[in-house]
This record gives sequence, structure tokens and C-alpha cells, in this order.
Amino acid sequence: MSDDRVDQWLAFAREFLRALADRKRKQFDRRVSIGDLLTERDENAAAYGFGEGTTMYDNVLVLGTVKVGRNTWIGPGCILDGSGGDLQIGDWCSISAGVQIYTHHTVKRSISLGREPIEYAPTRIGDGVYIGPNSVIQMGVTIGNHAIIGSNSFVNGDIPPGAKAFGCPARCRAK
Amino acid sequence: MSDDRVDQWLAFAREFLRALADRKRKQFDRRVSIGDLLTERDENAAAYGFGEGTTMYDNVLVLGTVKVGRNTWIGPGCILDGSGGDLQIGDWCSISAGVQIYTHHTVKRSISLGREPIEYAPTRIGDGVYIGPNSVIQMGVTIGNHAIIGSNSFVNGDIPPGAKAFGCPARCRAK
Amino acid sequence: MSDDRVDQWLAFAREFLRALADRKRKQFDRRVSIGDLLTERDENAAAYGFGEGTTMYDNVLVLGTVKVGRNTWIGPGCILDGSGGDLQIGDWCSISAGVQIYTHHTVKRSISLGREPIEYAPTRIGDGVYIGPNSVIQMGVTIGNHAIIGSNSFVNGDIPPGAKAFGCPARCRAK
Repeated sequence: MSDDRVDQWLAFAREFLRALADRKRKQFDRRVSIGDLLTERDENAAAYGFGEGTTMYDNVLVLGTVKVGRNTWIGPGCILDGSGGDLQIGDWCSISAGVQIYTHHTVKRSISLGREPIEYAPTRIGDGVYIGPNSVIQMGVTIGNHAIIGSNSFVNGDIPPGAKAFGCPARCRAK
Repeated sequence: MSDDRVDQWLAFAREFLRALADRKRKQFDRRVSIGDLLTERDENAAAYGFGEGTTMYDNVLVLGTVKVGRNTWIGPGCILDGSGGDLQIGDWCSISAGVQIYTHHTVKRSISLGREPIEYAPTRIGDGVYIGPNSVIQMGVTIGNHAIIGSNSFVNGDIPPGAKAFGCPARCRAK
Repeated sequence: MSDDRVDQWLAFAREFLRALADRKRKQFDRRVSIGDLLTERDENAAAYGFGEGTTMYDNVLVLGTVKVGRNTWIGPGCILDGSGGDLQIGDWCSISAGVQIYTHHTVKRSISLGREPIEYAPTRIGDGVYIGPNSVIQMGVTIGNHAIIGSNSFVNGDIPPGAKAFGCPARCRAK
């Protein structure tokens, strides 16, 4: 592609994206990245069969089979991994920005230089669960209804309903 | 859209993006993602009225009213949330990659299944503040000038000027 | 650009991206963001001279000189910073999503309001190293072969071969 043609398309793409950015800013008072300029969050969620009222930013990575209930908010940069058979997330959850929820991991595969297989286990998140930004939920974990997971936590064990847990690894604490 | 037409546009888009990637690599010795191939970091910051010398990667989510001073670096994947009325960030800050600074949260809204409202409070970051990668600043926090926040921290209380704090929740420590 | 023209291009872009998304879903059973609809992970890695079998998502930021071995998995949202002279990563590593590996930092530059320079030091990651999601590796660190770094860790010192370390800052623990 000639330099001139690259310049022409770049000028066009920039003008187009600025027009879309102006629209988003007027409509939602927010600045979003290119993927969210070209998609709508409710449609992203609906395309995966997630429940009514659930929204999902465009740069969410979804692997395998993931079921999400209604009115759940899925922030930018999240990973919802159903590659390990099954990931279920309930209603009214906050899956804050940067949260990663897994049904597999590659610890043994990496340290064995590929001789050991990837491991898998299903993961369940109840209704009304708040998961703070950048937290990571390991494969095989169940988080009960109405639980609160603090920001930047690593959850590698089950969390009972209504509990508040945080830390790396996350431990239950008084509210 | 026919498969052939998709193939043609995909081939074109890939050639265009490779040309842009070659330019960025020659100019800045770096690989950036599609949003940053199509925008410039200083222009992204200027479009939001941020101060001279401040730069912002394209995939930064900006909500509501956010004021940023001069010569501040805003990395990729950050969230600057001014939806809670007011987020102010000073001069010469490092808002490292993956940092999320909030003026709202949805803890009570989630665990009440939507019966409780979203909560809001203004947040202030002083001048010369370093916030390490992936750290999260809760709504309502004030971080004083020249403070250092370690990587992967969760800041849920005020940090005095010149302090060094880290952890989840972040606590002040000897330098 | 007229509103009509923006609408037309938006409709086209959305149709094109949906067609690409359908392809990725059928081929890989996954939902990826726009950058990964337009690129292939093995080609992204090969374009940087990384070893055979290594893959890299599109929204990885690569700065300066970075060498990566074979069969290493580099997840979405990572930062591989070779701006400080040299970043080396071995074979069969898991560089999980959101991991940031640095050879520079701006702590003193920020708190001095730009009077102090950026600092640099080379960083090395051995073979068969697992680095959990969202972990941050500070400049100057060496992580030995077959080490395991837990999720959401901040590594600011060397980690010996075969060790398991986690926390902020990361400390070695019994396996």
C-alpha cells in the first residue's frame, strides 16, 4: 500500500472515529475506545445470550460456554473463561473492570515445559455478587449470593453467601 | 455481507494496519494496539482539555468530568471516572497502565439486587503522584502531592503528601 | 463528515465486524475484541521475531527490544517493556492476561516533577515460568526457570528457579 493511500485512509478513519466519539460523548458523557465506538454494550451481551439488562464492553474476552443472568454489569478488559466446561454468573452482579474469571489454568503445563496438560474446573458466581476491579477468580471456585470481593483480590477458594473477602489469596473478613 | 467481500475488506484492513504499525515502530520503537495506531496520545489528552504535555493511550475509559494537569502520563487500560461529580489529577503524575480511579461504586447496588442506589464521592490526586500499575483508587480518596502508590494496591483511604503506600488495602510504609 | 455518511460507514463497519466475530466464534469458540478480529495471534508474535509456537494477543504493548522464546503464551492486555535495554523471556512461559513486565520506571521522575530522570534496568524471565494474571514485574528482576508467580503479585526482587512466590511485594512460599 502506498504511503499516500495509507495517509488518505488514516485521515478518513480518524475523522470517522472522531465523529463517533462526539456522539458517544454527547449521549453518555464518556470516552470509550474504538471497539466500543463501533458496538453497543447491550448488544454485545445479547449476542452471547446473556440476560436482559446485562451489558458488556467490547474488549471482553469470552472463551467457551459462559452463562450470565440479568442486570449484570461487565466492565472493560474482563475475561470470562468458560473453556473448562462451564462458567455461570448470576443476576445483578458487578464484574468490575479488569476482572478475570477462569475455568482453566496452565501452571503445571508451563512449569513442565508442556509435558503436563492444561487443568480445568467449572466456576460459579451467584446473584448480587460484587467483584472489585482487577480481581482474579481461579478455576473451580464458587462465590455465594450477595458476596463482596475486594479490588485486586485473588480468589482461590469458595466464598460463602453474604461474605466479604479480599486479599491474595482472598480471605473472609468482618464487614 | 458475502464471504468474498469480508475477505477483501479483511485483507485491506490488515494491510492498512500493518502499514500503520510499521510507522509507529519506526517512529517510537513500540508496538501499539489498533486504537493507538489510529490516534495520537497527545491529541487524545488534548481532546479532553487535559494540560499541556499530558498524554493518554486510546483505550482509556473516561467517565463524566475529569480534570488533569500538565505533563501527566496516562497509560493503556486506565479508567478515569468522573461520574461522581469530580475527579481531579495534578501535574507530573504517573497514572500507570491498568490504574483505575473512581468517584462511584456499585457495592450496595449489586448486593441489594438493584434496590440500593449507586454511591458517589469526589476524588483528588495531587501533583507529582506516582500510582503503580494495576492499582485501584476508591471513590472519595485524596492522595497528596509527591505520594507513591505501589503496584497492585487498593487505596480506600486518604494518603498524605510525600507518603509511600501499598497493599490491599493500602497502608503507609517507610520509604 | 456528514451524519449520513457516518451512519453508512458505521453500519458497514458493524456488519463487517459481526461477520469476523462469527468466524472467530466458529473457529475458536471465543469472543475477541476488534484488534484480534483483524489479526492472528501467531502472526502478532512472529512479527516481533518471537519463537515458534509463541502467540500474542493484539492489544499487547511492546516497547523497545524484547526477546521471547518458543511456545510462550502472551495474554491480552499485557505490557512487555524492553525500553530499558533488554527484556528476555524464555520458552513455555505463561504471561497471563494483564501481566506487565518492565525495564524502566518513573517513580523518581514523577515525585520530582520531572527533575529526576527515568530509571532503567534489564529484566529476565526464564523457561517454564508461570506468571499469574495482572501481576507486575519491576525493572531489574530475574525470575528463574520453572518459577510460579501468583496472580495480582508485584515482583520487585529476584525469584530463584523453581520457587513459588506471591503477594505485594512477592515473597517465596512453600508450594
